[in-house]
Amino acid sequence: MTYSNPLRDPEDRRLPRIAGPCGLVLFGVTGDLSRKKVMPAIYDLANRGLLPPGFSLVGFARREWADQDFAQIVHDSVKAHARTEFREEVWQQLAEGIRFVQGDFDDDAAFDRLRRTIEELDEERGTGGNHAFYLAIPPGFFGAVVDQLKEHGLAEERDGSWRRVVVEKPFGHDLESARELNSILDRVFPSGSVFRIDHYLGKETVQNILAMRFANELFEPIWNANYVDHVQITMAEDIGIGGRAGYYDGIGAARDVIQNHLLQLMSLVAMEEPVSFDAESLRFEKQKVLSSVVLPHRLDLTTARGQYAPGWAGGEKVNGFLEEEGIKKASTTETYAAVTLHVDTRRWAGVPFYLRTGKRLGRRVTEVAIVFKRAPHLPFTETATEELTQNALVIRVQPDEGMTIRFGSKVPGTAMEIRDVNMDFVYGGSFVESSPEAYERLILDVLLGDPPLFPRHEEVELSWKILDPILEHWARKGKPEPYPSGTWGPESADKMLARDGRVWRRP
Amino acid sequence: MTYSNPLRDPEDRRLPRIAGPCGLVLFGVTGDLSRKKVMPAIYDLANRGLLPPGFSLVGFARREWADQDFAQIVHDSVKAHARTEFREEVWQQLAEGIRFVQGDFDDDAAFDRLRRTIEELDEERGTGGNHAFYLAIPPGFFGAVVDQLKEHGLAEERDGSWRRVVVEKPFGHDLESARELNSILDRVFPSGSVFRIDHYLGKETVQNILAMRFANELFEPIWNANYVDHVQITMAEDIGIGGRAGYYDGIGAARDVIQNHLLQLMSLVAMEEPVSFDAESLRFEKQKVLSSVVLPHRLDLTTARGQYAPGWAGGEKVNGFLEEEGIKKASTTETYAAVTLHVDTRRWAGVPFYLRTGKRLGRRVTEVAIVFKRAPHLPFTETATEELTQNALVIRVQPDEGMTIRFGSKVPGTAMEIRDVNMDFVYGGSFVESSPEAYERLILDVLLGDPPLFPRHEEVELSWKILDPILEHWARKGKPEPYPSGTWGPESADKMLARDGRVWRRP
Repeated sequence: MTYSNPLRDPEDRRLPRIAGPCGLVLFGVTGDLSRKKVMPAIYDLANRGLLPPGFSLVGFARREWADQDFAQIVHDSVKAHARTEFREEVWQQLAEGIRFVQGDFDDDAAFDRLRRTIEELDEERGTGGNHAFYLAIPPGFFGAVVDQLKEHGLAEERDGSWRRVVVEKPFGHDLESARELNSILDRVFPSGSVFRIDHYLGKETVQNILAMRFANELFEPIWNANYVDHVQITMAEDIGIGGRAGYYDGIGAARDVIQNHLLQLMSLVAMEEPVSFDAESLRFEKQKVLSSVVLPHRLDLTTARGQYAPGWAGGEKVNGFLEEEGIKKASTTETYAAVTLHVDTRRWAGVPFYLRTGKRLGRRVTEVAIVFKRAPHLPFTETATEELTQNALVIRVQPDEGMTIRFGSKVPGTAMEIRDVNMDFVYGGSFVESSPEAYERLILDVLLGDPPLFPRHEEVELSWKILDPILEHWARKGKPEPYPSGTWGPESADKMLARDGRVWRRP
Repeated sequence: MTYSNPLRDPEDRRLPRIAGPCGLVLFGVTGDLSRKKVMPAIYDLANRGLLPPGFSLVGFARREWADQDFAQIVHDSVKAHARTEFREEVWQQLAEGIRFVQGDFDDDAAFDRLRRTIEELDEERGTGGNHAFYLAIPPGFFGAVVDQLKEHGLAEERDGSWRRVVVEKPFGHDLESARELNSILDRVFPSGSVFRIDHYLGKETVQNILAMRFANELFEPIWNANYVDHVQITMAEDIGIGGRAGYYDGIGAARDVIQNHLLQLMSLVAMEEPVSFDAESLRFEKQKVLSSVVLPHRLDLTTARGQYAPGWAGGEKVNGFLEEEGIKKASTTETYAAVTLHVDTRRWAGVPFYLRTGKRLGRRVTEVAIVFKRAPHLPFTETATEELTQNALVIRVQPDEGMTIRFGSKVPGTAMEIRDVNMDFVYGGSFVESSPEAYERLILDVLLGDPPLFPRHEEVELSWKILDPILEHWARKGKPEPYPSGTWGPESADKMLARDGRVWRRP
């Protein structure tokens, strides 16, 4: 295993990027996020030789645990969820750097212990004072924790060492609360040290949108209003809210998914070419897109929301949202949301971006579909192209990461008949390299201090600016439209597109 | 089986097009072409219900055969080479219309017998006076045969019936001989009744070039000199000349393949959108392309020719061209030819078209590759795109008919590295319909009098105008450069592209 490569050119992004001496402090160690994503990703990074040999992982929680109890939790989570093979020697090396600090968020003594633990690790394992604090806890506690970190000198960078904080969505529930949250983080950490995780941005195909658009000559010439008819961005889930009632009720689909994942995807699809792929340039371009978004005048006709009713999922009868445990009987929380956005730029004038997300839909799929105009003229007989629809370039984010191009081709035979066919690129099929999990990429980027894939607070706030008027409009309207579980959402969503002479894809 | 559909709209090209009452007279019944292509295609058309029930097939040859001897020949060829399943009832119906006429091309009595045979068929089987004469014989005999047809009243159309003549390449061996050949046909048949078969134009993917280009919005915007760097059109064979020494020696690769197949392919790739797909409009556009072709000044640097030397094919040692049976020891006939052409139009100014063909090359493949320019700017680090080449759209004509798009995609992993990947569309995989043989399509078109897929004499002559100066240049140079069998041609061909900073695809 290689742990360092002193010869590598820091500019060469093809060489494995290996984190320097550092550690990670995890708050919220018992949650799903920590166990299913963060811990396995740390092991996978270690297994790939991308973590420093002295890497440390400190858990902080109320439980009465010793270091080895916490190590056992990590061990079990790695065994259950790691992407790469379990290797005892990698685990042993990782386990030696695992510590646990017991305490509440308001417990000064606990944060003192945390500071001492970190200092000891710096001594014993050479973590060099470089630590990231991963707040895998509800945002309501962010303030308390970062204040404690400051109070106890944990946020302070000394002698060229670094301290960073990692937070997960939701980044607020509207513009105001997002600003508040940002100011809480701001008062302790400079904005360059705050890493907001939108795990969609860690996905290979999402990063590939940029490679695909800007490394090729094939796509960019037609990537504009001259050729594009509209764009559909979909994140569909087949599951219901599961055990997330407490979080979900009152939040809903738009805040949960459109505000972050879908608007970020849209930024990448709609942005101009950045000067480079450094964080500053990317952020600048994403912000330009988000600042250019305008809403249609008639929100009643150009948005849709729904709430799943009883129906079918995976061949089984399932409850409606209002029957789910923990959901208020009169809840008006939407589980389906669709919006029409316009990006008011020269490139996209007149091209609607339709964003939709929902739970209990027909299938689990996330995709971006660029739907092209029809050819301006068809030199065929009318019947020859009767079954031809519009060309489309579909970026499949999950599952089956890849790309599909739909175009018209002649049907074999002695007559001229043209029909849609698909051309596929399957990410997994084209590379021997397997795709790392989004969390591997993002946690490594945190430890490397490489921020291009993390949304900045400006983007978060711009996204809320787009969503707030829609949320207010919906709040005035009362109940969302029910749709049977297992279908593709409420009728109003279909009508919304039909008014523009278009239809949703059934991916 | 449906033999007619009086309700069908003649404009609806999606409905099966069924030939009306007619027959076909075949000259040269013992050749490979007749036995492997024409006879099986006739059966396949009958089997698909596309021939009239009274269809007749008359063989004309020197052999002392009775009708049933000839029928047996057809039967055996169908059994051996037909694409569709053998069905006794279809065969029986076809066999009832099979006749044989014995005679030489200068035998007046034989042509009288042929006329009587045809008249009897019109009486007995209702072929209605509609007959096509398929000259599957060396072009040296065309004159004798068509003159006899005229002499004996066989070329004459009466009472709305039709007479057509079908010829195969070579359409001459230079401009002068082509003009002569055309004038021979002209003095008997009006130009609309002459069907020149270039079987490449009957291939599905070749026809699909037009569908693909003009039914879609994705490709046409980048189909020009702004985005295309160059075009490579390749027809490579792995076989040698086999038993064709008599035909091939003195003809060579350029006359055999570039003059017809490759220049026709180039016309379809380079043409502007036709007004419609009728013969007149297509011919007009193809002629425009061929008329716009200019040769580079230095033919010594922009063309290449070779002759296969001993080497390997399919794991076996094989002879060189000069050792083949029937080839003169001092033959300067080329078995490999590559030319650089420019299409002097607004669309293609500055984009070279490289055409190459050869025998005993690495693999049997025919393809058109549109190679695009690099993106004008790459906002990546240099190393990130080190392994990225140029985007390409490749139309595979044979084998594995279909299309491939090559573009750059991010390699999975935490670093930004971009590499070429392929996206495939396989014709056979996308349609339940299987592709008819080129000859099925083309023979049906002859019987229907549907000429769009047949090159007209103007195109043939324009093609010779392009090739003649190259052939003259080569004739002055003496011997072609030898290349070992199983390689991709002579070194001079690689140098020819290297001078332009390009490389041949290794398909």
